[in-house]
Amino acid sequence: MNSNTPEIVTPRTLKGFRDYLPAAMIARERLIDTARRVYRSYGFSPIDTPALEYLEILAGKGSAETDRQLYRFVDHGGREVGLRFDLTVPLARFVAQHAATLGMPFKRYHIATVWRGEKSQRGRYREFMQCDFDTIGTESVVADIETGLVIHGLLTALGFSEFTIRLNDRRVLNGLLENLGLLGQSTAVLRALDKLPKVGAGGVEQEMVSQAGATPDQAAQVVRLAEVTGTNDQILSQLDHMVSGTEVGGRGVAHLRAVLVGLQAAGVPVGRVCLDVAIARGLDYYTGIVFETFLAPLPSIGSVCSGGRYDNLAGLYTKQHLPGIGASLGLDRLLAAMEELGMVESVQTPADAFLAYFAHDALPNYLQLAAQLRAAGLRVDLYPEAKRLGQQLRYADQRGFRVALIAGENEIAKGTCQVKDLKSGDSVEVAVGPAATTLAAAVRAVLTKQAAP
Amino acid sequence: MNSNTPEIVTPRTLKGFRDYLPAAMIARERLIDTARRVYRSYGFSPIDTPALEYLEILAGKGSAETDRQLYRFVDHGGREVGLRFDLTVPLARFVAQHAATLGMPFKRYHIATVWRGEKSQRGRYREFMQCDFDTIGTESVVADIETGLVIHGLLTALGFSEFTIRLNDRRVLNGLLENLGLLGQSTAVLRALDKLPKVGAGGVEQEMVSQAGATPDQAAQVVRLAEVTGTNDQILSQLDHMVSGTEVGGRGVAHLRAVLVGLQAAGVPVGRVCLDVAIARGLDYYTGIVFETFLAPLPSIGSVCSGGRYDNLAGLYTKQHLPGIGASLGLDRLLAAMEELGMVESVQTPADAFLAYFAHDALPNYLQLAAQLRAAGLRVDLYPEAKRLGQQLRYADQRGFRVALIAGENEIAKGTCQVKDLKSGDSVEVAVGPAATTLAAAVRAVLTKQAAP
Repeated sequence: MNSNTPEIVTPRTLKGFRDYLPAAMIARERLIDTARRVYRSYGFSPIDTPALEYLEILAGKGSAETDRQLYRFVDHGGREVGLRFDLTVPLARFVAQHAATLGMPFKRYHIATVWRGEKSQRGRYREFMQCDFDTIGTESVVADIETGLVIHGLLTALGFSEFTIRLNDRRVLNGLLENLGLLGQSTAVLRALDKLPKVGAGGVEQEMVSQAGATPDQAAQVVRLAEVTGTNDQILSQLDHMVSGTEVGGRGVAHLRAVLVGLQAAGVPVGRVCLDVAIARGLDYYTGIVFETFLAPLPSIGSVCSGGRYDNLAGLYTKQHLPGIGASLGLDRLLAAMEELGMVESVQTPADAFLAYFAHDALPNYLQLAAQLRAAGLRVDLYPEAKRLGQQLRYADQRGFRVALIAGENEIAKGTCQVKDLKSGDSVEVAVGPAATTLAAAVRAVLTKQAAP
Repeated sequence: MNSNTPEIVTPRTLKGFRDYLPAAMIARERLIDTARRVYRSYGFSPIDTPALEYLEILAGKGSAETDRQLYRFVDHGGREVGLRFDLTVPLARFVAQHAATLGMPFKRYHIATVWRGEKSQRGRYREFMQCDFDTIGTESVVADIETGLVIHGLLTALGFSEFTIRLNDRRVLNGLLENLGLLGQSTAVLRALDKLPKVGAGGVEQEMVSQAGATPDQAAQVVRLAEVTGTNDQILSQLDHMVSGTEVGGRGVAHLRAVLVGLQAAGVPVGRVCLDVAIARGLDYYTGIVFETFLAPLPSIGSVCSGGRYDNLAGLYTKQHLPGIGASLGLDRLLAAMEELGMVESVQTPADAFLAYFAHDALPNYLQLAAQLRAAGLRVDLYPEAKRLGQQLRYADQRGFRVALIAGENEIAKGTCQVKDLKSGDSVEVAVGPAATTLAAAVRAVLTKQAAP
């Protein structure tokens, strides 16, 4: 190799990172647009925060694991900085810093990229997007009801009909533990309870006895609580009984009852919301109600939208007491689910119609036609070179266009254009009026037509 | 302080970084939505690339300045990595890596955050958003025309009417330099020419003589080229004359002529596009046509959308020859301009109407009413606590709501709701039907009404 020839750098992305090609990005943009539309319909406002924060803002604010995964370095000014690993820590910093300007209660959504240097494995990325919404500064049950409504609205707007929102409340377990005299061991109890699906009732009870200092009878009572099943009403009356006499437990059960009533008043179908006392995950860091959302056709992918209530969001950054509730939509998980369920048609282009550049000297005609169609609200991709039609149609086909517009010298002389359905192969010749409205209507007719099988 | 009390970490952002509060973020989202809509209407597809790239992908690919400003560090796996400083280098890596999958020509837009550790000064940030569109894999003039159309479409869609797109072509200057025997000194000539607005013709000519080895007469001819003015037709005929006999100059002039014809065919008003041979900035790295865009009421803020044609995008990553053309919308600059020109009404909420929570026991009624209004397409912010109405209305006022919906026990009993115009103070009582369509219409009537002066 000549030493003057610059060496080619192999084009590649870092492990755990990925490019979004058009089809993937179009699907992601559609999902994000839907989420934004739903968040906005409830009055949640968008915010954004920097990707980089002072290390002291981020470090020690998540778990030992997030600390280990933190991308951290020293910047040009000698400052220790880190890339945000979630949107909750930045939210806490944000509301502590701007509380006076924002006013409370404050409802925000935040859709942004976060980074975690995780051990990369199938389906886990080191860069991913989070899609959070939170209501800060109120303990009202209305915010809890609304959280459920937004989750329901999101899933419905995305086209899901078979899904279940599962509810629990940390205080119910606390009530039982208080009755049993085990309130001080709640962390160890929760850690054991979390293993219920894996090790079964026997294993959980054993761990509670050995690790949480419970008697076998106490452990059995806790497991019985987590195994309470039935209709929501049946569960509520059993819980009433199990936590009777404790203020905290009573409040938890009353709260769950109020949330169910509210969701129903707002039109959420009864079967969509289920009390599930077995939800232990989340109870560890949430202090009140907890939400998880499962897709009936794909239970194995886990919860696609989870959240809950916390007592004090920003205690590390301000003395102002800021309770809140929030949830996070699992964008990547949902996209994967929608793909698996055949809910997203893969498209490589955001345009509605492909316009061939056929007769070399007629470029002004094509430019004018494209402009007219765009003015009529259509998105038109004009091929930039007067190449053979076959090559142009391969381009259109590769990008999944349904409609190709073709006008040769004859059509241009007559003032017409061929509208070709690339799925059926059918073609109709349509007059190009001064505003191309007839042509635009013909394109729309093909776009809304079902493809012949 | 008790040693068990965790210390409060001062909530602050890094120098050169900033939070987006709702009003700023709502304005930014609106601008981005408009840009996406315009890009898509021309068939540009969205893509995304990782924020972090291998350092070897980024370093040495911009200027010495971007190298110095690069945020770089060593990651968990010992890899040298950097944060992207623009979207062009990642695009080059991306097309080199995926060219076969993408197919050429390839039209993409990319709206994403980039980072530069610049010396921070007023209005310059270390984290900002770029909003680029590019057409790769074709040398056709159609792509150049379309670039102008997209710029025109963007500014028009944003509500600007007084702006000028200025065009130049690197090859015109090259033609003159070839005629003068100065083609080898083009970089030094350009560097001098770039100072024309600052130091005037005399200063530029002096520098060309001392730095580019031009004779005083040659220098005067170059300056004369840059000072050619008149209508586009007048400029074209003068340029024809000045570059006559050189192939490259002739191609440059012919190209500018074809782009002007194409823009006009697509309906761009004549006065919106001006040839401007004085645009030297950009000629340094572009190889053909160059675009700059100026707002007539605010010329001082500089070009709000700039771009041009390059011979070979991805030469550092692939042997495949990939010519292209692209431009970048200056989001922050445009937002600042729109604010200065009073084109953006500051809103703190994306919602259309504020619904007061007035009668404590009527929560199910409010939840139902909000659900009905949302089903009718309105965005409704329900206050979460049954506080005094005055406090709730202050919340609505602080967020710039135009409409408040108020229903006390009387209204609920009657099946009505007050629709209050918060600007005029007027209130009308409207019946709440089963689908709330009358009420939704009443809200829309207020939203579209001009406020009384």
